[in-house]
Amino acid sequence: MKLATLQTEQGVTVVSVMDRANELMFFDIRAIDESLPRSLKGILSLEDGLDRARQAALQAEQARKQISGTLLAPIPSPGKVLCIGLNYRDHAEETGMPFPDEPVCFSKFSSSVIGPHQPIRIPEIAKEVDYEAELVVVIGKTCRNVSKTDASQYIAGYMNGHDVSARDWQIGRPGGQWLLGKTADTFAPTGPYLVTADEIQNANSLPIKLTLNGEVMQNSNTDKFIFTVEEVIQFVSQFLTLEPGDIIFTGTPPGVGMARKPPVYLQPGDQAVIEIPGLGILHNPVETWN
Amino acid sequence: MKLATLQTEQGVTVVSVMDRANELMFFDIRAIDESLPRSLKGILSLEDGLDRARQAALQAEQARKQISGTLLAPIPSPGKVLCIGLNYRDHAEETGMPFPDEPVCFSKFSSSVIGPHQPIRIPEIAKEVDYEAELVVVIGKTCRNVSKTDASQYIAGYMNGHDVSARDWQIGRPGGQWLLGKTADTFAPTGPYLVTADEIQNANSLPIKLTLNGEVMQNSNTDKFIFTVEEVIQFVSQFLTLEPGDIIFTGTPPGVGMARKPPVYLQPGDQAVIEIPGLGILHNPVETWN
Repeated sequence: MKLATLQTEQGVTVVSVMDRANELMFFDIRAIDESLPRSLKGILSLEDGLDRARQAALQAEQARKQISGTLLAPIPSPGKVLCIGLNYRDHAEETGMPFPDEPVCFSKFSSSVIGPHQPIRIPEIAKEVDYEAELVVVIGKTCRNVSKTDASQYIAGYMNGHDVSARDWQIGRPGGQWLLGKTADTFAPTGPYLVTADEIQNANSLPIKLTLNGEVMQNSNTDKFIFTVEEVIQFVSQFLTLEPGDIIFTGTPPGVGMARKPPVYLQPGDQAVIEIPGLGILHNPVETWN
Repeated sequence: MKLATLQTEQGVTVVSVMDRANELMFFDIRAIDESLPRSLKGILSLEDGLDRARQAALQAEQARKQISGTLLAPIPSPGKVLCIGLNYRDHAEETGMPFPDEPVCFSKFSSSVIGPHQPIRIPEIAKEVDYEAELVVVIGKTCRNVSKTDASQYIAGYMNGHDVSARDWQIGRPGGQWLLGKTADTFAPTGPYLVTADEIQNANSLPIKLTLNGEVMQNSNTDKFIFTVEEVIQFVSQFLTLEPGDIIFTGTPPGVGMARKPPVYLQPGDQAVIEIPGLGILHNPVETWN
């Protein structure tokens, strides 16, 4: 099942999605089951939320309960945006860094999350804003201290994600300002929709690609992960409770702008497109703040 | 005005507080104005929320509308928990580090927030868990790109805060795991209540003290700030939108456990007490996970 969050004339609501060659059709699952929460986080927070959404989606699609609106991020305000650095073997090799012994964790604030087609805005004080295509995991159930074997039970699904990164802040300052370089407003595009875990055979073996203005800049596969999705969940859950709607950016493959000679950084007017087969296309234009 | 968040038999609700020599009395402001939101974040999100809460508090106190329950964190689930490192001149001198040129920013997840009297829990994988008394700023209004002069308009008030820090993760790992060392569950005690900004003459000149098992471990004054509260808000708002209920930990004074010889780390059974005059007392016991 594919679920998205739509801004309609009646407000924000969660919908099911049919994707035919990147033509998206949205179906009003709450027209079938109006007791479903309006938010995807709300649905995930219910024990049987995804099951009920699935039943409603089937009926809504059969009854052609189409609905239109503007896509927002599938989860517009996650409780946590956790990110993993240096998690692809080929990207670690590109940077010349040794493989980390454990997942390297950082975070973004939920205020940096935007949806498809919303502009990535370059703040005035950042000059070296880079792109990073990533697979994003969405947590479906509360968990703490889970084993690698059990981790998959707590995953609701997956999305495309873009870990936009101001390199002049992340690594260009004395000691580094990782948080600021990663969490400026608009620096966490996700979407266009959440794909539930049952539709993804193996999240640790998915092609992942980013094009900038039509040119392929990143093209790899999550089978290059240093730490699998399940290993990341096991590791971080030793520290903190993961909750429904929390999202995890799992790291980026090689080809980032700062590793190029000369470096390539995002400019106003650029078009960034991320594609993981099965997860749709995440397209964001680049602008400045007015 | 002092506002707190109380778990009562009827659910979670915001109350006003009278503090008589650390004996707290709670008053049911929603018994006076039941259209007030139940959460402090909800009140701050209303244009006139604090004004209405103030009127209701006056009436509730006059009418002796007392209410009882268990204190939670004033804002149990902030949208952001932003933290500033190395922000006291005397602490920077203690560590031998040069004064930073700009506020050094990191974050905690909101899942690390706990209230007064709730236990700080040492996770199994952390051995060197340190204490840090801090002044916490609560944002009252949405703002981005604000000047130092305007910054105070966006401050709702202040709280005691405890930036619990697992040093073996924050700085003991290759490259550092700042996020994990700072954001384990229970690592962000705050409270006991929010004090609105009108009651604090100058947030950049407040005594701040931490005692551990009755022994004074930190004893300084926010007049040693390298960056004032207003400078911090100006700086970070160049990157991100601050929103009502966001909280900012402003750094810790000298006397932390890792700077002592031999180092002092939190142990099960310890009692940590933070006091900033006017902001009440934040008392948290230390436990392990069962």
